[in-house]
Amino acid sequence: MRLYDAGRAPNPRRVRIFLAEKGIAVPLVPLDLNRLEHRTPAYAAINPLRQSPALELDDGTVIAESVAICRYFEELHPEPPLFGTMALERAQVEMWQRRMEFGLLGPVSAVFRHLHPAMAPMEVPQVAAWGEANKPRVMDFLAILDRHLSGSRFIAGDRFSIADITGLVGVDFLKPAKLALPEEMTHVKRWHAEVAARPSAAA
Amino acid sequence: MRLYDAGRAPNPRRVRIFLAEKGIAVPLVPLDLNRLEHRTPAYAAINPLRQSPALELDDGTVIAESVAICRYFEELHPEPPLFGTMALERAQVEMWQRRMEFGLLGPVSAVFRHLHPAMAPMEVPQVAAWGEANKPRVMDFLAILDRHLSGSRFIAGDRFSIADITGLVGVDFLKPAKLALPEEMTHVKRWHAEVAARPSAAA
Repeated sequence: MRLYDAGRAPNPRRVRIFLAEKGIAVPLVPLDLNRLEHRTPAYAAINPLRQSPALELDDGTVIAESVAICRYFEELHPEPPLFGTMALERAQVEMWQRRMEFGLLGPVSAVFRHLHPAMAPMEVPQVAAWGEANKPRVMDFLAILDRHLSGSRFIAGDRFSIADITGLVGVDFLKPAKLALPEEMTHVKRWHAEVAARPSAAA
Repeated sequence: MRLYDAGRAPNPRRVRIFLAEKGIAVPLVPLDLNRLEHRTPAYAAINPLRQSPALELDDGTVIAESVAICRYFEELHPEPPLFGTMALERAQVEMWQRRMEFGLLGPVSAVFRHLHPAMAPMEVPQVAAWGEANKPRVMDFLAILDRHLSGSRFIAGDRFSIADITGLVGVDFLKPAKLALPEEMTHVKRWHAEVAARPSAAA
């Protein structure tokens, strides 16, 4: 088994944090996005969508998509549970994991991809107006998240979950996108300080 | 239990098809998107992201996000399985479900939302260049999907799954987005004809 891993990009980091929380070691195959190593025909044969990460099993089967890779390891190693355990909790983790993707990580990534000069070779075409349109979306979502976290220790309740991982990666990606967490978002700051202090966050 | 349902929009349809496949009846509360009923303070109290669908349980707990609602019903009513059963199959269903979202339904929706005049009151700002940028993405993804379906009956293998539901809704949404499935995509057409003929597709 080996994991094709593109270093500092948000999605590979999500999987590395998840594996660290589970205490699972998987050999990494580095992909250099700046050298467009994910765009080669060799990598397209592994993942036709040419995205990282991708997990290759010993029989050659490939699982792509960060959350699918995480779910595979959750099935094989259920402890500690990072997708919830009972029906309602599993649904709530899924809801918040998706909200963190569609409300935070996705819009922050759109700001980064469409406005950062370094992304010009990868994001074709860059649409600056789309990058700008995502800035208020990020801030609106952070305000909703701040209200939610005023009554919740972690994003999906009392237990750390994959929703916290996506949230941590999303908040940490504000900086490369040249955005800042507003000072008044004290609940997001309290939550972020806690999850960023976990050993897994260094992954 | 009741489901806030915005009629013809793609996400509510995903949940209705899923429920029809499971044989589950849930009372629907209609939301008229054209009258912006999902933007009212009353609905924001149910789902702060002001999106449809949302499932309200009898104790007032709300589960939002289409796939989270589907997963809740999968947990309560495992048969027929629509998220897979064993670890690898569950990961592959998740992978393909996400590919259908990020590769097809999302980009088709971006074309619709950013280029269709009727969406101007809801998509603020409409960024026409972003709508246009998504057209070739849709076509590139459909080509990858066509190659995949040349060797697979359903999207995630031999069994109908939630990935087929997202795919069906995505392909059917080409028309409102004023896009067309290219004639040469014979495998996508064969697959679409089969899934569109299931009774659930009328949901």
